[in-house]
Amino acid sequence: MSTLTQHQWLYRRQPTAHITADHYELVEQPLATRLGEREVLIEARYFSVDPYMRIGQSGKPTYDPDPHPLDTVQQGGVVSQVLASNAAGFLPGDWVYSYTGWQSHARVHAGALTRLDPAQAPVTTALGVLGMPGRTAWFGLTESGRPHAGEVVVVSGAAGAVGSLVVQFAKRHGARVLGIAGGQAKCDWLRDTLGADWAIDYKAHADSGTLAAEIRALTGGVDVYFDNVGGMVTDAVLPLINRRARIVICGQISQYGGGLDTPALGPRLLHHLLYQRATIQGMLARDYVHRMDEMVRIVAPWVQAGQIVFEETFVDGFEQLPNALNALFTGEHRGKLLVRA
Amino acid sequence: MSTLTQHQWLYRRQPTAHITADHYELVEQPLATRLGEREVLIEARYFSVDPYMRIGQSGKPTYDPDPHPLDTVQQGGVVSQVLASNAAGFLPGDWVYSYTGWQSHARVHAGALTRLDPAQAPVTTALGVLGMPGRTAWFGLTESGRPHAGEVVVVSGAAGAVGSLVVQFAKRHGARVLGIAGGQAKCDWLRDTLGADWAIDYKAHADSGTLAAEIRALTGGVDVYFDNVGGMVTDAVLPLINRRARIVICGQISQYGGGLDTPALGPRLLHHLLYQRATIQGMLARDYVHRMDEMVRIVAPWVQAGQIVFEETFVDGFEQLPNALNALFTGEHRGKLLVRA
Repeated sequence: MSTLTQHQWLYRRQPTAHITADHYELVEQPLATRLGEREVLIEARYFSVDPYMRIGQSGKPTYDPDPHPLDTVQQGGVVSQVLASNAAGFLPGDWVYSYTGWQSHARVHAGALTRLDPAQAPVTTALGVLGMPGRTAWFGLTESGRPHAGEVVVVSGAAGAVGSLVVQFAKRHGARVLGIAGGQAKCDWLRDTLGADWAIDYKAHADSGTLAAEIRALTGGVDVYFDNVGGMVTDAVLPLINRRARIVICGQISQYGGGLDTPALGPRLLHHLLYQRATIQGMLARDYVHRMDEMVRIVAPWVQAGQIVFEETFVDGFEQLPNALNALFTGEHRGKLLVRA
Repeated sequence: MSTLTQHQWLYRRQPTAHITADHYELVEQPLATRLGEREVLIEARYFSVDPYMRIGQSGKPTYDPDPHPLDTVQQGGVVSQVLASNAAGFLPGDWVYSYTGWQSHARVHAGALTRLDPAQAPVTTALGVLGMPGRTAWFGLTESGRPHAGEVVVVSGAAGAVGSLVVQFAKRHGARVLGIAGGQAKCDWLRDTLGADWAIDYKAHADSGTLAAEIRALTGGVDVYFDNVGGMVTDAVLPLINRRARIVICGQISQYGGGLDTPALGPRLLHHLLYQRATIQGMLARDYVHRMDEMVRIVAPWVQAGQIVFEETFVDGFEQLPNALNALFTGEHRGKLLVRA
């Protein structure tokens, strides 16, 4: 073959609130398959959708000075198989991870590919527990949260890709863990399957006051708060922090539907940090890429031994990518959400 | 003499907004002057008024589980002279520091007194640059702010007792310093007398947007934000933080007029911490009492050499204490506010 049909989702329009397919355009075009030196042709099998993608669509500077460029392929992590290779060490059928975004095929320099070994762990774990979400959970908890055995760790977005790992990693540090999630089914899963000591359905609370009362009744006070959500849940937790509490800002997904560009209003609670000499620290997974081996050395054996629950929810169809991304903020999935090509 | 007349300000009623004399009652009573073993009779000369006093009047738990007890003498730091002594090392006329609060005289165990040497530094510095405010400024800046030479340090409440020291300490760390204060006179003082690189009068701004624009135009971005104030000023600074910025919550005085019990609303800005991997840390001077020698060893020589500006504003009259306390939040003083008996 000399060309194949490459499908791409181009990011076309900045959302002001939630993401829909209208913010993207699905295009197809021929892709020349002739390979340059050390090039590999890959076909995507699994696409990651992650909350950070919505941050990159903010109109203001965020973790990058500029937003995701319009009219380019949506960036993101992908697990693919090699179709053809002009690089030593890569053979057709091999599984690879790359940051090639929402496109069905790509020619990639071998240096931009990470080989995956399906015998070691399911290849999709490269987008989850052994990938960026796992790195976020591990280093966010251990470097910023620093839980001690016996301490109370509260996790918001606890049923999500990162949160569900934080719950389990915190238990392995000997902490007592409260997971906060939306809906009773997720809460049952947090307790019964992930081993959380407690779980609270924040949707059962009309405001942060009653939510705070329930958190206080269960935990007595909070030593580590791993926050994926922000908003009302954080409003409830902040006044309950103990002396020298550590608050990890990993995400603020409740604010991503517009509040990043025009911040929503919430109660001013910074005075609680003063009373408790507490710390709020923002973290990004990219800061720990160079320490990935360190995390894999500890976590991969747990994964191989079946000691870590890494639930995956698959959405079928490349054409579903924008909808799947939006479902991160509205959906009922547990664990890691993936799109299967 | 066997008794003398002791004047006391009793804390009688919890304020819901600003403090007035109605929240206190001035009483007098006889004080027996006969001294027990190691007791010292002191007469107060200078009283400290400090913003933390208003925090202690919150109806909710703050830095202590319970608020300042009603119907007791207002707690606070005092510089006194010894009238009579039954303790070795204390002679009539000696200057001492104690935490005996708003009362004209007291019998105090020698262990609760700190001797002051008027030859080393003015005795009032025990309530300012060489006392709690100095400790707050020094350790808040060096332990939580950790400025590097060349970095931008922004100080809110920069003309106050703590802020005016932070400005100078930050300059001595080689930082470029922006002081934010209320009114042009304070700003001139920050630049011309304290050596701030820049000063902004926040009262010249109707909202945080224009204030932020001015901060950005002057500094380009903020590495360390030493916050005494909270509210609109903090709203302006937070979106301007640089990578790995350190935000020190030393005070939130804009919120003390009621916002502690019923928090005011402000924009949700925690997502900025995530982008910049920044840290917000609350600090209290009490955590560094045991390291006071370390700070004095460095700062006292600067004070003795006349290299630190520690402006003091005196209010005359014991009966002015509640008004002076309220003036912390509304007043036009610079530096440390003291009441002279």
